[in-house]
Amino acid sequence: MQHPTRRTFLYLGSLATALGLVFRATPAHAADAITDSTWMSALTAVQTRRSVRLYTDQPVNEGSIKTLLAAGMAAPSAGNEQPWEFVVIRNPGTLAQVGGINKYAAFAKKAPVAILTCVNTEREKFPGNGIVDVAACTQNILLAAHATGLGAVWTGIYPEQDRIEGFRRLLGIPETVIPLALVVIGHPRSTSKREDRFDATRIHDEKW
Amino acid sequence: MQHPTRRTFLYLGSLATALGLVFRATPAHAADAITDSTWMSALTAVQTRRSVRLYTDQPVNEGSIKTLLAAGMAAPSAGNEQPWEFVVIRNPGTLAQVGGINKYAAFAKKAPVAILTCVNTEREKFPGNGIVDVAACTQNILLAAHATGLGAVWTGIYPEQDRIEGFRRLLGIPETVIPLALVVIGHPRSTSKREDRFDATRIHDEKW
Repeated sequence: MQHPTRRTFLYLGSLATALGLVFRATPAHAADAITDSTWMSALTAVQTRRSVRLYTDQPVNEGSIKTLLAAGMAAPSAGNEQPWEFVVIRNPGTLAQVGGINKYAAFAKKAPVAILTCVNTEREKFPGNGIVDVAACTQNILLAAHATGLGAVWTGIYPEQDRIEGFRRLLGIPETVIPLALVVIGHPRSTSKREDRFDATRIHDEKW
Repeated sequence: MQHPTRRTFLYLGSLATALGLVFRATPAHAADAITDSTWMSALTAVQTRRSVRLYTDQPVNEGSIKTLLAAGMAAPSAGNEQPWEFVVIRNPGTLAQVGGINKYAAFAKKAPVAILTCVNTEREKFPGNGIVDVAACTQNILLAAHATGLGAVWTGIYPEQDRIEGFRRLLGIPETVIPLALVVIGHPRSTSKREDRFDATRIHDEKW
C-alpha cells in the first residue's frame, strides 16, 4: 500500500518526466552533453537494458562518450586499483576491421563509435583482479549508454586469446594490457523489449 | 541550452520526486518491497555508489533482496548464458565466519545480510566467460542496493584460490561452482561522499 499523497506526487513526477522526454527528443538538444538531468531510474536502466546492434546514422557526441567513460571509471575495483584504460574508436576504417577479429562483432562497421575497455595489468595492486574490475566498469558503461538513450552491446574479447591478440595488433596495445570488451555504441534504430531473466532457482538460502 | 518548456517540466518532475521521497521515508512504507518507483537516476547511482561497510541494526527486507537479485540476473552474459547463482546469507553464525576466510570482509559479522555471487561453470556456453558475466551481475547488485537506499560493498573472492575454497567449504558449494564475490549489505550508518575518479589520461583516441 502506498501513501495516497505520495502516489499523487509520483504520478505528477511521471507525467512531468514523460513530458520532459518529449521535449528532450527535439533536435534542438541533440548536440548537448547528456548528464545528470537524465530521467531514467537506476532500477529501470538495469532491468530494461538490452544489447543493441542496429544504429541510426546519427553520430554520438563527445559529451555522451565522456559521460559513458566517467560512468566506467566510477566502478569499484580491488583495493581501488582502477586498472582500466579505454580506446575510443570512431574511424570507420578501424571499425570495419573488427569483424575480422570477432565475426559476432562485424556490425561494428555500421556503428558511429565503439569503446574498447582494457585491463592495464601494470595498474593492478592485486594481480588477476583487473578482469573483474574492468567487467564491472564495462557494465557501468552499458547502463550509462542505455540510461542516456543510446544503444550499446558488450562484444566479448577476454578470455578468447585470438581476439585479445587481434585487438592488440589492430590498435597497437602493449602485451601488459588485456582488451576485455568492445562496447559498440550508437543511437538505437528501434526500441528493445524487456526480457525478464529472474529465475528463483538460482537463489540458495543460507547454504548451496 | 535547454528548451525552456522542458526545463519547467524537469523542475516539476524533480519537485514531485523530492516530495515523493519525503513521503517514502515515513515508517508506513518501510516494509514494502522497493521496486521501480525508486527515484535515483541511473547516472547518479553509478556516480555516487561507494563501498559501505558500516550498517545500522535495521534488517533488510526480503523484497529488497529480491530486487537486488533481479538486478543481478538482468546483466548481460556471453551468448546470454546467465551462469550466475546466489547464496543469500542472513545467519549470524555464518556471517561471523567470513572474517576467517577473508580478513578484509570480517565486518560482515555486523551486517544483516550478504549475497554470495557465483559462476556455475556447468551453465557456461563459452568456457571461461562466466567470471566476466558474474562480475557484471555483481555490479548490477551494487547499483541496485545503492539506488534503493541500501549500502553494500563488493568483497572479492575470485581469483584468490584460498578464499574460493574457504567459501566452498563454509557453504557446501560444489567444485564446478566458483564463488566470485560476497556482497555485504545493510542500511548505511552514514552517507558517503562522492569520489570523482574521472581520469582523462586513461582515454586513448583511435589507437593506444
